[in-house]
Amino acid sequence: MIDLHNAVFATYAIAACLMILKAVSMSWLTVVRMIGENGGFRNPEDTKKTPMNPNPSPAQIQPNERVERIRRIQQNDLENLPFFLAAGFLYVLTGPPLLLAQWLLYGYVVSRLLHFAAYFTGQIHEVRATFWSIGSLILIFMTVRVLLAALGY
Amino acid sequence: MIDLHNAVFATYAIAACLMILKAVSMSWLTVVRMIGENGGFRNPEDTKKTPMNPNPSPAQIQPNERVERIRRIQQNDLENLPFFLAAGFLYVLTGPPLLLAQWLLYGYVVSRLLHFAAYFTGQIHEVRATFWSIGSLILIFMTVRVLLAALGY
Amino acid sequence: MIDLHNAVFATYAIAACLMILKAVSMSWLTVVRMIGENGGFRNPEDTKKTPMNPNPSPAQIQPNERVERIRRIQQNDLENLPFFLAAGFLYVLTGPPLLLAQWLLYGYVVSRLLHFAAYFTGQIHEVRATFWSIGSLILIFMTVRVLLAALGY
Repeated sequence: MIDLHNAVFATYAIAACLMILKAVSMSWLTVVRMIGENGGFRNPEDTKKTPMNPNPSPAQIQPNERVERIRRIQQNDLENLPFFLAAGFLYVLTGPPLLLAQWLLYGYVVSRLLHFAAYFTGQIHEVRATFWSIGSLILIFMTVRVLLAALGY
Repeated sequence: MIDLHNAVFATYAIAACLMILKAVSMSWLTVVRMIGENGGFRNPEDTKKTPMNPNPSPAQIQPNERVERIRRIQQNDLENLPFFLAAGFLYVLTGPPLLLAQWLLYGYVVSRLLHFAAYFTGQIHEVRATFWSIGSLILIFMTVRVLLAALGY
Repeated sequence: MIDLHNAVFATYAIAACLMILKAVSMSWLTVVRMIGENGGFRNPEDTKKTPMNPNPSPAQIQPNERVERIRRIQQNDLENLPFFLAAGFLYVLTGPPLLLAQWLLYGYVVSRLLHFAAYFTGQIHEVRATFWSIGSLILIFMTVRVLLAALGY
């Protein structure tokens, strides 16, 4: 069952890889923003004069809203994605129908990408919260399903 | 061995699901607290007038201790639970006796729930630290056991 | 294939365990630093008079740079290691050659240990960023490899 040639497991693997790449992208996006803003750094040593920072200033380690936004998005990923990676894996072991697994796993991926789009562009809380909630409910559904299966139901 | 009908693996799956649900609950508890406090938000757009926030004010994005407490509890989860999910899975592969696996995996769950109770109610550091340490030592024990097995001991 | 006697999987398990122990060590190192500094705490209740804190003061919950540095290092772990644990596991399922798996998985471990050494000792950003980037690129490589395999390529 844990085999990339198994359609349900491959569905999980694709969703998992997309979410891992999404999470890693937030780190690189933070780097891009810090370079673009020439600030938003966090360490005292980041204001030393170096080849990549020829004109350092103490202001560079002040919080920068454009950088902090990406960090908040990333923090939201950390609160959600590691648990999706584990729950999705265990969910595959319950032997779900392929179509249901695709709706849940790809639905989760889509909800997180829409959450990112809403957060990144500063949409009102209701939009962001809706996409987050969809993903969280999918995660809870899969986890409860595994729990019941493991308990013998 | 990776089968929900295997007693040791089912033990892991139950413990993992409980910890995933615990982690996800922290997000929802943060939401509940933000609604109850009508504050503790973090994004500039969260002070816009919307259906769910009819009377916005800049004070809503000031840190709110009752909300921040839940965020700190969640951060502690992020520092621990993803590693438990991975270590517990690998530990099952070492073929431990069922009773020992139950003590370790369920013991970890109990230690985290007690840690939550102590943190949530603001008990002194010694209480919180004791429960955290029990969980952390279980995690270290399982990880070292896997490491030795993988190295051939 | 998911067997600690399989050389490729054992390589993954060893790398995973080292990274889990590394992540857990950051928590304990934070504790050591807080004791050494007698400060850097984060909760209001941590300034109560207790057996381990006989002379409390409000200054104890002010940010302390020596403690915050460890917290930033740990945060960097949280942004990276859970995704490595998942990606590395899935990568094993693609059946890579042992030597390549060893270079990638142990290379990741070495990159993270060097990142820690650079961060801990406050080296300039370029040094820290180089080690972080090596690990991140290994993670991306493995994830893309799994994605392609799961898609049938």
